[in-house]
Amino acid sequence: MLLGLSILGSASGQPGRAPFKAMNPATGLELDPPFHSASPEEVDQAVRRARAAAPLFAACDGARRAALLRAIARELELDAAELVPRVMAETALPEGRVRGELDRTCFQLRLFATVADEGSWVDARLDTPDPARHPLPRPDLRSMLRPLGPVAVFGASNFPLAFSVAGGDTASALAGGCPVVVKAHPLHPGSSERVGRAISRAVAETGLPQDVFSLLFDAGHQVGAALVQHPGIRAVGFTGSFRGGQALLGLASARSTPIPVYAEMGSGNPVVMLEHALSSRPEAIAQTLAASITQGVGQFCTCPGLILAVEGSGLQRFRDALAAALATVAPAPMLGEGLARAYRDGIERLKADPSVHGHLSSPSSGSLGAPAFLETNGAQLILHPELAEEIFGPGTLLVACRDDRELEACLQSLPGQLTATLWMEPGDLGLATRLLPHLQELAGRVLFNGAPTGVEVGHAMVHGGPWPATSAPHATSVGTLAIRRWARPVCFQNVPEALLPPELHHANPLGLWRQVDGAFGKH
Amino acid sequence: MLLGLSILGSASGQPGRAPFKAMNPATGLELDPPFHSASPEEVDQAVRRARAAAPLFAACDGARRAALLRAIARELELDAAELVPRVMAETALPEGRVRGELDRTCFQLRLFATVADEGSWVDARLDTPDPARHPLPRPDLRSMLRPLGPVAVFGASNFPLAFSVAGGDTASALAGGCPVVVKAHPLHPGSSERVGRAISRAVAETGLPQDVFSLLFDAGHQVGAALVQHPGIRAVGFTGSFRGGQALLGLASARSTPIPVYAEMGSGNPVVMLEHALSSRPEAIAQTLAASITQGVGQFCTCPGLILAVEGSGLQRFRDALAAALATVAPAPMLGEGLARAYRDGIERLKADPSVHGHLSSPSSGSLGAPAFLETNGAQLILHPELAEEIFGPGTLLVACRDDRELEACLQSLPGQLTATLWMEPGDLGLATRLLPHLQELAGRVLFNGAPTGVEVGHAMVHGGPWPATSAPHATSVGTLAIRRWARPVCFQNVPEALLPPELHHANPLGLWRQVDGAFGKH
Repeated sequence: MLLGLSILGSASGQPGRAPFKAMNPATGLELDPPFHSASPEEVDQAVRRARAAAPLFAACDGARRAALLRAIARELELDAAELVPRVMAETALPEGRVRGELDRTCFQLRLFATVADEGSWVDARLDTPDPARHPLPRPDLRSMLRPLGPVAVFGASNFPLAFSVAGGDTASALAGGCPVVVKAHPLHPGSSERVGRAISRAVAETGLPQDVFSLLFDAGHQVGAALVQHPGIRAVGFTGSFRGGQALLGLASARSTPIPVYAEMGSGNPVVMLEHALSSRPEAIAQTLAASITQGVGQFCTCPGLILAVEGSGLQRFRDALAAALATVAPAPMLGEGLARAYRDGIERLKADPSVHGHLSSPSSGSLGAPAFLETNGAQLILHPELAEEIFGPGTLLVACRDDRELEACLQSLPGQLTATLWMEPGDLGLATRLLPHLQELAGRVLFNGAPTGVEVGHAMVHGGPWPATSAPHATSVGTLAIRRWARPVCFQNVPEALLPPELHHANPLGLWRQVDGAFGKH
Repeated sequence: MLLGLSILGSASGQPGRAPFKAMNPATGLELDPPFHSASPEEVDQAVRRARAAAPLFAACDGARRAALLRAIARELELDAAELVPRVMAETALPEGRVRGELDRTCFQLRLFATVADEGSWVDARLDTPDPARHPLPRPDLRSMLRPLGPVAVFGASNFPLAFSVAGGDTASALAGGCPVVVKAHPLHPGSSERVGRAISRAVAETGLPQDVFSLLFDAGHQVGAALVQHPGIRAVGFTGSFRGGQALLGLASARSTPIPVYAEMGSGNPVVMLEHALSSRPEAIAQTLAASITQGVGQFCTCPGLILAVEGSGLQRFRDALAAALATVAPAPMLGEGLARAYRDGIERLKADPSVHGHLSSPSSGSLGAPAFLETNGAQLILHPELAEEIFGPGTLLVACRDDRELEACLQSLPGQLTATLWMEPGDLGLATRLLPHLQELAGRVLFNGAPTGVEVGHAMVHGGPWPATSAPHATSVGTLAIRRWARPVCFQNVPEALLPPELHHANPLGLWRQVDGAFGKH
């Protein structure tokens, strides 16, 4: 039973303001009920409540936060029978994908629970005092990461579960001890409400202040803007377009107290195919990439939108195989008509470039997105770097290079990326070794002989990268390292141990991995 | 023998452009030789050279970088007989302070050498592959921090050694594998050149490319601006004024590829004295704070410019004792006439506020700075937060509060700080416990029963804090954690081990502390 109202911690939003409905992209039909946009007063209330709950939440131990995250996962699983069909209706994503995403979301919540529970992520450091040191005594110094305070999270259109209300940003912020205020994505408000209510139930079960979580609806952009500008918000997590991320960054840096915006803004995800790989298995590579390009109708941040290789017989076989593989994929509904239109416009813009010719671009209309396969050459890409800009959807641009040097120059001309992929065989080792530093410099994740989609959730994952892929290259939005975004180090000098958090007690009661006088250990 | 020319890696700057001389602030006399500002072409050359050297420097191992840092410390010590007098002449700082700062600078270089040598700072993480996992195999994921590339460092006026050419920013950036281009502070160009040449000699001794280090002179702001705007620069380290930091932030974020600016911009460093501490030892606290306020003529980022306490007989005794202690301190030359003038103007502006009255503010002129002790009350501070703005120099503002609640409200009204200090006795434990969360939220370092000056260099130190104290609250500019500023995580997926850095090899050949499937250990 959906209410269509924002969740303001323990209170509820009021109906009336700018109501909007979700639409089923597969049928074009509106879905009940109407959702009511949060008023400026409601935004303020949500943040004030988060602010008031922040000290208590920051003081509660990792085990308690872990219990909350596990309870959220449990509540989501209990709601699956109603949640999954609603997500499918709002996104036109197939059931398998939605169930898989729900599994991933719950896995992610439980992974952050283990991180909060174990506790060493706070990077505790103790420097032993030395009262006898000359000329001055050495003080007792202890430092650890402490939560920033209330975090604003923006739901993403393309991952209604894993990057939305209970997605990676929320999971990592709650694990780190920060209250969360989510701005729901307007393309899947019903899914957002269901997940938001699951979180609220989990908060209640865990006995935490209800105000550590709020969920705000909005038909437009006012709520998000008000949230980022609110003095009570201390950091922002966002996954979406470059324009959206830029807008939030502008608001955040114009505040009287600027705050960090962790914006993951998209990427062309270049795939480089080297000679021996291309000549030995062009069809297999084409199959893998075709599946990656069209998976989820291309609506992944890591969709391979750019393929680079040196001209030759291997590339010709690849070209034919990729065109053939993509031609078998029927147009499918994207997450909304706006996204589908933007995709088609992007493809048309590319095709209008005199250097670009099309191998495949079937017509589509409404919310449908059809695979597209275009081509240009290396010299043109270097001259016109805008050709490499991300087009969100199931399209890719092949860049045929004259030789290895042009290929290398192409890589050096690209802007920052989430991923960079290299296909190689042992015979390519020399060139692979030469290109690897460029790939590292280009992207947050470098992968060999695979497809960039399918971002693994783990400890070593980096889903980030240099500008403009993200606004904060030192951070990741997937993987356990993501928790660091919501914390900052605080040093305590000569503070009586009784007043310090247990993470910094001399006897190490929580059994953390720490640095004592610079030496790592469980001490 | 000073040349007055910029160092452009292995090349030298040319004479001619905008020459300027250092001045002895104690005598007002100019010091030879003239220094020649770098031309735009020379800035470009320095950055291009750094850029070209970056991959090799990034690929060289921690032991090599450690050798470089130790060689720099050795070269500085060998140069002490000429370096120390030049620093004294350019800054009017006494010999003991300059020698102490040289020791600190060398200690810091060697501390970062141990960090580079040990190597675990790269936060290596390995997630074991599982080819049999369903529905998809789990890939081989390994991540670590990798250097960002060339870093621009701005020398600070108030620490001619420890925060300048071979200071903490340079030491941590070199330790992390980033080439450094320093913009020398124009108040101590001769000291900068001596230190710069020591670094160049150390680079040569270590057999590294000479272009990993450059030093640029400038009479004004053009060189610094060009440096921050240069596309080859990947991050900026700055210690100085709020205005200076803001200007660099503006330039960095207006780039087509914005870069992080780690700006440490100053702080009022509030000191809170609780009732029992005040009534039991007001004179001792006053002595400690008077020494902290006037040390180095108040020219420390952590100088206690704000003292808060509840009105009472203890506070009256403190007031008298602090006024008496400060009255015994004679005016002394500040680092330059401009700084002294800005200090005097700041004190006059404060005194002009109707709520402020002065206990002590001796006249001074030229480059001299005299101690100042002013007072306002808590209600006024809450109404006029601009009263709390840093005035760089040996002055402090006492804020007398009506009661504990007003004291708490004052703390909550303050902007971000580098440090927050609390004086307490066991009888103050209740209030101290209540105030500690506010102090943590306010500052990067919280200290009890001491003075905020004298920043210890160690593993647990945090010299950072919320805006406007710094532009990057998640970072510190002092202590070994500072190395993280110059790196970002990169993940390698299914990359053949032979192509990976040894930090990520399965057998852990460097013996690092790592996370394997999330478990910490030397494995």
